[in-house]
Amino acid sequence: MNTPPPAAIGAPIEDIDTPALVIDLDAFERNLNKMAQFAKQHGVRLRPHAKMHKSPIVARKQMALGAVGVCCQKVSEAEVMVHGGVDDVLVSNQVVLPHKLERLAALARHAKISICVDDFDNITQISQAATKFGVNIEVLVEVNVGANRCGVAPGEPALKLSQKIASSPGLTFGGMQAYHGAAQHVRSFDERRAAIAKAEDMVRATRDLLRQHGLECRTIGGAGTGSYGFEGTGKLYNELQVGSYAFMDVDYAKNRAQDGGAFNDFEHALFVLAHVMSRATPTVAVTDAGLKAMTFECGMPWVRDVPGAEYVSPSDEHGKLSVPADCTLKLGDRVWLIPPHCDPCVNLHDWYVCVRGGRTQGRVEALWPVAARGMGF
Amino acid sequence: MNTPPPAAIGAPIEDIDTPALVIDLDAFERNLNKMAQFAKQHGVRLRPHAKMHKSPIVARKQMALGAVGVCCQKVSEAEVMVHGGVDDVLVSNQVVLPHKLERLAALARHAKISICVDDFDNITQISQAATKFGVNIEVLVEVNVGANRCGVAPGEPALKLSQKIASSPGLTFGGMQAYHGAAQHVRSFDERRAAIAKAEDMVRATRDLLRQHGLECRTIGGAGTGSYGFEGTGKLYNELQVGSYAFMDVDYAKNRAQDGGAFNDFEHALFVLAHVMSRATPTVAVTDAGLKAMTFECGMPWVRDVPGAEYVSPSDEHGKLSVPADCTLKLGDRVWLIPPHCDPCVNLHDWYVCVRGGRTQGRVEALWPVAARGMGF
Repeated sequence: MNTPPPAAIGAPIEDIDTPALVIDLDAFERNLNKMAQFAKQHGVRLRPHAKMHKSPIVARKQMALGAVGVCCQKVSEAEVMVHGGVDDVLVSNQVVLPHKLERLAALARHAKISICVDDFDNITQISQAATKFGVNIEVLVEVNVGANRCGVAPGEPALKLSQKIASSPGLTFGGMQAYHGAAQHVRSFDERRAAIAKAEDMVRATRDLLRQHGLECRTIGGAGTGSYGFEGTGKLYNELQVGSYAFMDVDYAKNRAQDGGAFNDFEHALFVLAHVMSRATPTVAVTDAGLKAMTFECGMPWVRDVPGAEYVSPSDEHGKLSVPADCTLKLGDRVWLIPPHCDPCVNLHDWYVCVRGGRTQGRVEALWPVAARGMGF
Repeated sequence: MNTPPPAAIGAPIEDIDTPALVIDLDAFERNLNKMAQFAKQHGVRLRPHAKMHKSPIVARKQMALGAVGVCCQKVSEAEVMVHGGVDDVLVSNQVVLPHKLERLAALARHAKISICVDDFDNITQISQAATKFGVNIEVLVEVNVGANRCGVAPGEPALKLSQKIASSPGLTFGGMQAYHGAAQHVRSFDERRAAIAKAEDMVRATRDLLRQHGLECRTIGGAGTGSYGFEGTGKLYNELQVGSYAFMDVDYAKNRAQDGGAFNDFEHALFVLAHVMSRATPTVAVTDAGLKAMTFECGMPWVRDVPGAEYVSPSDEHGKLSVPADCTLKLGDRVWLIPPHCDPCVNLHDWYVCVRGGRTQGRVEALWPVAARGMGF
C-alpha cells in the first residue's frame, strides 16, 4: 500500500500533514538553473544522478534545461526513469546478477542504456544479455580514483577491461567512470581540490594509455556536488554526475568554500516538515520526525526559523529539539528541518509536497510521487 | 508504485533478488513463543510494539500466542493494524493535530483505541474528537521516567492530567505510560536494572498518589526488549510493550547479560540479504546493501557465515566489506547481514521474504507485505 499524499494542491503550509518531504520550488528551480548554466558555460555534459531524487518528473526538468540524461544506481531505478520518459540512462554501478542484466538489456530496447564494469567475466555476462535482446549497451570501465569501493586500478587494468569491452558483441566501449565519492565531503576546499587533482592525474594517464591502444573515451564521467567545480573546469572530465545540488543537505552545507566560509553554491530546497507533539519540558520541543523521516548517518538535521532551537536526538518516531526556555513553539506548530543527507531521506517518502512562495506564505503547487522510492534492487 | 516481491514462494535462497528483507521463520517463531511464555509465567499482559514490524500478519501471530493487542506510534500505523484484523491498539504516543485525532476517533468505532497524553489542552482535543464520533477512547498519562522525551513529571503533574482525563467526556482514564526508552541500550546489565528500578520508584509513588485520589491504573505500561525482564517480574508494570524481541538486531545484541556475556534471550531472525557486486580489490567485497537497505545510526550490520568479513562502510547503494585476502566470496554470492537497528530498517522495505529451513537450505515459505511501511504520520 502506498501512503496517501500529505496535502492537497492549493493548501497553505499549515494544512500539510507531517512528517512530509517538502520541496521549496523557488529554491529548487534556482539550483537547477545554476548547475545547467555552469555546464553550458564550461562545455561539459550534465547527467544528474537520479539516485538522489528518484523522480522522473525532476529528471525531465533537468533534461529540459540541457541535461543529456540521468545516472541511476540500480536496474529498478533505471526502469522507473525510462518508464517516466527519460531516454538516456547510465547505470553508474556494477550489475552482476543474470536476471538483473536481462532486465537491463530488455530496457535497452526502449532507451539508451549504459553501464559500468570492473570485472572481466561481468563483461561477458553483459554481452550475452545484450545479444539475447538484440540491443547495444554502452559500457564504461570503472576506475578507482580514490573512493576505494568499486573500480579497477587506473592504467593497465583499466586498459585490459576496456579492450575486452570493445571486442565484445553487443557492447560499445563508452569510456571511463571515474567518480571520486570519498572526495565529496572532504570539508576543506584545498583538500577537495587536491583529491580531485590526484584523480585527474590517474584519469589523464589512463585516457592517454587507452588512446595509444586506439580506444577513445567518448565519456569521462564523475563529479558530485562537492567537487563539480573542479572536474567541470579541468578540461578532462566531460560529464558531470551531480545529484544533491538540486536539493542541498546539511552534509554538503558543512563543506567549506574557497574563502573558508560555508559552501553555498546552492540553496537548501528540500525539507522535512514536522510538527511539535510534546512541550512537557520548557527547554524541549519534541517533533514527529525521527529515524523514519530521515537518516542520521551524517549527523543531525538543521532547524530553520526557530531561534536557538537545535535538533539534538532522534528516536524512531520522535525528534527532540533543545529550545531556549522562552521559546514560543507550541503543540501543533510546524517546524522546518533540513535533512542531514538527502538521498536516503528521499527514499523514505512516497511524495514530494512542492511548495511555491516560501516557508510561511507558501502554498502547495504540486504533489510529485517519489516514483523510485524503494527501487533499490 | 510499490516494489514487486523479491522472490517467489518456494524459491531457494539463491533465487531471492537482493537487497531483500528476510525473516528466518524458525528463529522468529521461537522468539515469539519465548516472550509469550515469559508473559504468561509472570502474569503480565503482552502488547508488542507494531512500530517495529509494521505488519498486521506478525501482529496477529503475536496475538494468537496471547498478546492482548499492539502498540503503534502513529495514527496511520494504527489504521493499518485495525484494517489488518487487530482489534486493540494503543497509540503509545502523543497525537495533537486535529485531523489526526479525528481519524483516530473514527478508528475507535472499529477497534479499541487507547492513547497517551502529556498536555492539558490535548486532553480536551481528544475528548472533543471522541464525542464527535460517539466513541470512547482510553487515555494513559505519559510519565517521564528517565527517557526525557515526552511525558510529564511523576507525582502531582501526572495526577492533575489523570484527573482531567477522568473527568472528560468520551474518555476513560486508563493508567500510566511509563516506558524508559533510554534504558534499553544501556550495555551493562546492572546499570539497566538500576535505571528500571529508579523508574519503578517513580511509577510506584505516582500509582499510590493516584490511588489516594481514587484513580486506579488499569494499565501500567512500558518495557522494551532490553529491560522486559525487570518490568516483567517487578509486580508493578502489568503490560509489556516489547518490539525488537521478535527479530533481534545488532544494537540489542551489544547489550550484556547478567553474566557479562552477550544478551541472547532471543535469536537473530531478521536479515538483509545482499549480494556481492564487486571484487576488484582482493580484501574488499562490495555488496548491494547500503543506506537505502538499512540504517546506520546504531553502527554497522554484522556479517553472517563469512569468516573474517566485516561490514566497514555504507554508501547509498553499496556496502563495503573488509575480507581476508583468501576470502572466496565471488560476484553474485549472497551475504546475510544482521541489521544494526530493526525498526527503521523494516521501514525501508515493502516485503518480508519469509524463509523456512535456514540460511543455506532454506526455501521461501511466505511473502508478507510490510503493510505499514512509510505510515509515519
